[in-house]
Amino acid sequence: MSVAQPKENQYTGSPLLKRLAITWLERRGVTLDDIASLVYEVQRKYIPHLTMAACRESVERVLEKREVQNAIFTGIAIDELAEKGLLDEPLYTMLKNDDGLYGIDEILALSIVNIYGSIGFTNFGYLDKVKPGIIGVVNGQKNEKVNTFLDDLVAAVAAAASSRLAHRDRDGLL
Amino acid sequence: MSVAQPKENQYTGSPLLKRLAITWLERRGVTLDDIASLVYEVQRKYIPHLTMAACRESVERVLEKREVQNAIFTGIAIDELAEKGLLDEPLYTMLKNDDGLYGIDEILALSIVNIYGSIGFTNFGYLDKVKPGIIGVVNGQKNEKVNTFLDDLVAAVAAAASSRLAHRDRDGLL
Amino acid sequence: MSVAQPKENQYTGSPLLKRLAITWLERRGVTLDDIASLVYEVQRKYIPHLTMAACRESVERVLEKREVQNAIFTGIAIDELAEKGLLDEPLYTMLKNDDGLYGIDEILALSIVNIYGSIGFTNFGYLDKVKPGIIGVVNGQKNEKVNTFLDDLVAAVAAAASSRLAHRDRDGLL
Amino acid sequence: MSVAQPKENQYTGSPLLKRLAITWLERRGVTLDDIASLVYEVQRKYIPHLTMAACRESVERVLEKREVQNAIFTGIAIDELAEKGLLDEPLYTMLKNDDGLYGIDEILALSIVNIYGSIGFTNFGYLDKVKPGIIGVVNGQKNEKVNTFLDDLVAAVAAAASSRLAHRDRDGLL
Repeated sequence: MSVAQPKENQYTGSPLLKRLAITWLERRGVTLDDIASLVYEVQRKYIPHLTMAACRESVERVLEKREVQNAIFTGIAIDELAEKGLLDEPLYTMLKNDDGLYGIDEILALSIVNIYGSIGFTNFGYLDKVKPGIIGVVNGQKNEKVNTFLDDLVAAVAAAASSRLAHRDRDGLL
Repeated sequence: MSVAQPKENQYTGSPLLKRLAITWLERRGVTLDDIASLVYEVQRKYIPHLTMAACRESVERVLEKREVQNAIFTGIAIDELAEKGLLDEPLYTMLKNDDGLYGIDEILALSIVNIYGSIGFTNFGYLDKVKPGIIGVVNGQKNEKVNTFLDDLVAAVAAAASSRLAHRDRDGLL
Repeated sequence: MSVAQPKENQYTGSPLLKRLAITWLERRGVTLDDIASLVYEVQRKYIPHLTMAACRESVERVLEKREVQNAIFTGIAIDELAEKGLLDEPLYTMLKNDDGLYGIDEILALSIVNIYGSIGFTNFGYLDKVKPGIIGVVNGQKNEKVNTFLDDLVAAVAAAASSRLAHRDRDGLL
Repeated sequence: MSVAQPKENQYTGSPLLKRLAITWLERRGVTLDDIASLVYEVQRKYIPHLTMAACRESVERVLEKREVQNAIFTGIAIDELAEKGLLDEPLYTMLKNDDGLYGIDEILALSIVNIYGSIGFTNFGYLDKVKPGIIGVVNGQKNEKVNTFLDDLVAAVAAAASSRLAHRDRDGLL
């Protein structure tokens, strides 16, 4: 019965898929708070009254989107298959070495950033270059693990959550 | 007073900007019902219980997004400036002739389609090629008017509204 | 010794990677001529003097681009891993059923189309919707095989090769 | 006479359009050397043997692409029309103030970055955030001028030229 279906839930994937996406990120060493703190770092100079709670809530909302969930499932699956040696060449070596010319990791990340509009591109590029917080941690594990997609996915979710906050702040909703 | 601020309103631009975007489209000869009927045509084979009212509502929701509004304002402004002869060469001739290699009209359209995820690309391309309904009408006026951006904007709004319906139908919200 | 390195080869990946990409496509049942004939169908009404040889050559050039090769390797790898049952849920079921809301297949395809500019979006969408030639064949095999990425990759290579021909024709090079 | 038409010229717009694009940039205070020096700054840590001459040549090549030229003509035209007060509201105020939520400037920039593949996104975002060299200069003129599109266009050309160099270096062509 779908009587009290909340409006919030519109085109956002099921709660189960959101929980799964969070579990997959945690399995790779990334928590919601790790991402929320990237959002806080990026947005606090634009929104002086920003709180960590608002950042965390924004990350949660981004993770409700089906497109975001699918990018996370796909990217992490590829990282893990590379780690297990289940990918054929020439893909295996490109992923294992996080080849700077590979580019498909950025493509998946862009599909996340796009969801809240083009203003997120700048924040994504900045996070991907400077690698603050958890992005640097994940990037530093590249000897033991394959995190070729993971660092871009995390930067993209943080960039999208930042864009969402910028829009909400303008609309007087923060 | 912002007590009862509806959640629906999140990151969606002000109601004023939405009304303005609709006015700009109407000034160029395109109504919400014109776009809704493109959505109906594209989606009814996937969603048998689809109604025109649901299509119309979906178009309205797409037009609440700030990114969509900005693409509409910018594209229509360029069409109208070309019509008035206020653009320098080589831009003027490319726009006047709807040069097939111009491409910036498709770029603006993509920024609209992206908002509801990549599943909209296919519908956008199809509408842009086949030019049903109002898209064909607008395209046929190219002797008297400059509609280089307008037809792509309309196809993009229809494609985005179709994607939104596909997501909502999956979530049991239609 | 690299003295006579042809200019043609610039930023286009090694010949080995191109051959590998062609092999991967053939392994999934798609030949260069299959793709060339999609290009011919799409472009011949715009370029009356178009030949199949020019279409075939354009497809070959698209396949020299590293970004295109990487999208092909990644997409086909995922299709094959799904076929072998090596992907976890919820990814497995989405790929197995070519879920219309998955969207990551279109994202990879767009990264191919982008290489020759935004004019390719329309052709991509049209091919993806109408499914002529090999795209329909590949799509019809979805009971036995997983071709979720393959059909979009093929449509994207054909759309990119079409865009390239449109640019070359304008420049008087066809 | 077109006998010795160089292969280099393929799908790259006419030399006239390239010269025009350079003239438009110079009219707004940006020289090829300004952009080349951004490229040098971004890429020299990845390519130790990089020269300014190679950076300059890479910028020139990017400017031969029709999609890039069209983005430059369109973006600069909008900046100048805003400066002359020829744009209607609400567009005028958004452009005059370089509204952070406008987003269409980033969209045009992306169409430039895309030409050399997704690896350019990171460099674009970084340049757009940190605003080194000419980007900072252009951005600092925003009281007297409207440079809403210009700074993103310059960052995008520099990012694309950087991607091109990364690809060429891998292919042993630098």
